Amino acid sequence: MKSEVTTVWKGDMAFTANVSGHEIIMDSAEGDGGHDIGARPKPLLLAALTGCTGMDVVSILKKMREPLTWFNMKVEAEGREEHPKKYTSFSLVYQFKKSDGLNPDNVLKACTLSQEKYCGVSAMLKDTAPLDWRIEYV
Amino acid sequence: MKSEVTTVWKGDMAFTANVSGHEIIMDSAEGDGGHDIGARPKPLLLAALTGCTGMDVVSILKKMREPLTWFNMKVEAEGREEHPKKYTSFSLVYQFKKSDGLNPDNVLKACTLSQEKYCGVSAMLKDTAPLDWRIEYV
Repeated sequence: MKSEVTTVWKGDMAFTANVSGHEIIMDSAEGDGGHDIGARPKPLLLAALTGCTGMDVVSILKKMREPLTWFNMKVEAEGREEHPKKYTSFSLVYQFKKSDGLNPDNVLKACTLSQEKYCGVSAMLKDTAPLDWRIEYV
Repeated sequence: MKSEVTTVWKGDMAFTANVSGHEIIMDSAEGDGGHDIGARPKPLLLAALTGCTGMDVVSILKKMREPLTWFNMKVEAEGREEHPKKYTSFSLVYQFKKSDGLNPDNVLKACTLSQEKYCGVSAMLKDTAPLDWRIEYV
């Protein structure tokens, strides 16, 4: 498995990355030399985390024929103030809708399988800092 | 330093993450249950890597008053075929333009400072797999 990304500088602190044919715009905030025309790079790791584990969870729940109509994730990361400013912890919440009437054992199984077996991004981020996760019904 | 990302499921394998106020769309390929309306999640790590180190390099070269007009990066990652499908190596190329007449010592210094001191994403990815980098003049 090989991945490749090409990134072009767009002036000041703005960059455009080509990720599997899709443009991802990155920029720093006003005040940090940028113009906030795109995402900050570091939190993109958190987006990647949710996308990777989210795809696992959705496909496992689909195989289990669970009637999923709504699914959100929230992830927070704490980071160091000293250089290099690495994240020191990740906290991920999987949110499901009570009214979907999902089997909570199956939901727990799907999230556990992603976290412990399938999700490559989770496994990589766990090499740099602890990742805790939980399930919420809203 | 704290980061937070919220991600919403958009049906099938598509997700939209809100990253510092910017929407990042993620999807899997046709054939993997998705419709390719957004980036694959895992290569987003590579985009984050280029954005993070690219912003360092640009701001260091600016402080050095180097006449930068063009700057690209390419990054490749090799990955495992077994679950979890982690990357096993990262290879990053910083590309500059010969005709910009940059001082190569300053360029080397800027990239080295980012890789060895400042770039948080590089430092985190190095916790999971080796990262090699080089400079090219095109």
